[in-house]
Amino acid sequence: MAEEVILLDFSPSPFAMKARIALREKGVHFDLREEEILSNKSPLLLQMNPVHKKIPVLIHNGKPVCESNIIVQYIDETWGPESPLLPSDPYERACARFWADYVDKKIFPAGQAAWLSTGEDQEAAKKEFIKGFKTLNGCSIEEECPKLVGWAKRCMQRESVAKSLPDQHKVYDLMSEFRKKLQAQ
Amino acid sequence: MAEEVILLDFSPSPFAMKARIALREKGVHFDLREEEILSNKSPLLLQMNPVHKKIPVLIHNGKPVCESNIIVQYIDETWGPESPLLPSDPYERACARFWADYVDKKIFPAGQAAWLSTGEDQEAAKKEFIKGFKTLNGCSIEEECPKLVGWAKRCMQRESVAKSLPDQHKVYDLMSEFRKKLQAQ
Repeated sequence: MAEEVILLDFSPSPFAMKARIALREKGVHFDLREEEILSNKSPLLLQMNPVHKKIPVLIHNGKPVCESNIIVQYIDETWGPESPLLPSDPYERACARFWADYVDKKIFPAGQAAWLSTGEDQEAAKKEFIKGFKTLNGCSIEEECPKLVGWAKRCMQRESVAKSLPDQHKVYDLMSEFRKKLQAQ
Repeated sequence: MAEEVILLDFSPSPFAMKARIALREKGVHFDLREEEILSNKSPLLLQMNPVHKKIPVLIHNGKPVCESNIIVQYIDETWGPESPLLPSDPYERACARFWADYVDKKIFPAGQAAWLSTGEDQEAAKKEFIKGFKTLNGCSIEEECPKLVGWAKRCMQRESVAKSLPDQHKVYDLMSEFRKKLQAQ
């Protein structure tokens, strides 16, 4: 039986990017379906992720997997054992999971707050965002976090990553529009 | 070489309970160290979890593992393969991870808000808490969520669980004291 793999996606989402990269690292052919997440969620999304109603959702032969880090682990455990996404050693695997969790809990919320707030709140959120990156870097973005920037540059040389990231100008325009909508409310 | 397994703990914490249960399910001998988490964190805790400064922390032969769900997976992958904590099927494993993540993201924060807030905020948080449990139950606590309560009762019959949960009256007294401190600030 041919496998059916569908990814309910929203191109600017960093959570969806993780799922795209993981599928491409494993060489899995998939049907990418862009959701109108800000205005008009599809009936398929609401049916497949009734709890959170969020992308990304991976649908494998009709069965949904939700939450980006859980999707990445599912992909890793289901396809291509010859190209593992996580280290083979349980301790190193725990460390990789810790930092993935850290980005979701600390970096993403601070970045979102810095983008969507104004004035003093925005200044505080920016500081929190930079502090988050400094921790991730392990010491003290180009100048402040050189190890992290080096790692990101090496990632961008991989086809799985380059193909999975949206154009930065498009993301900027879309997020600007989203911010205006929120501030008009 | 003898293994050294230390758990930095705080008995009322549901996150720490997960780690205790997992270690006992696997029959791992460990040194349980209670932290004064509300008033006086130990130098060992600050050294072993400098990022979040939170319990639980599992220290295995001197190396720390942080974040309860990551600790549970590390325990599962390190000890006792004959008594796995997660299902063997990758899809069922993804589902188990989804609901563990759901409890951390939805149930715990709503419960904490219901406990620490007052007046209208508390009423709203209580509703959110019950809503979270209803979703976890899959349909519509004793009367409202019978499947979930049945599962919890079966869990309590296991020694690993019964030994890992603190006395409910002690937890109530401690949390009451904590709430008073917060409200006096």
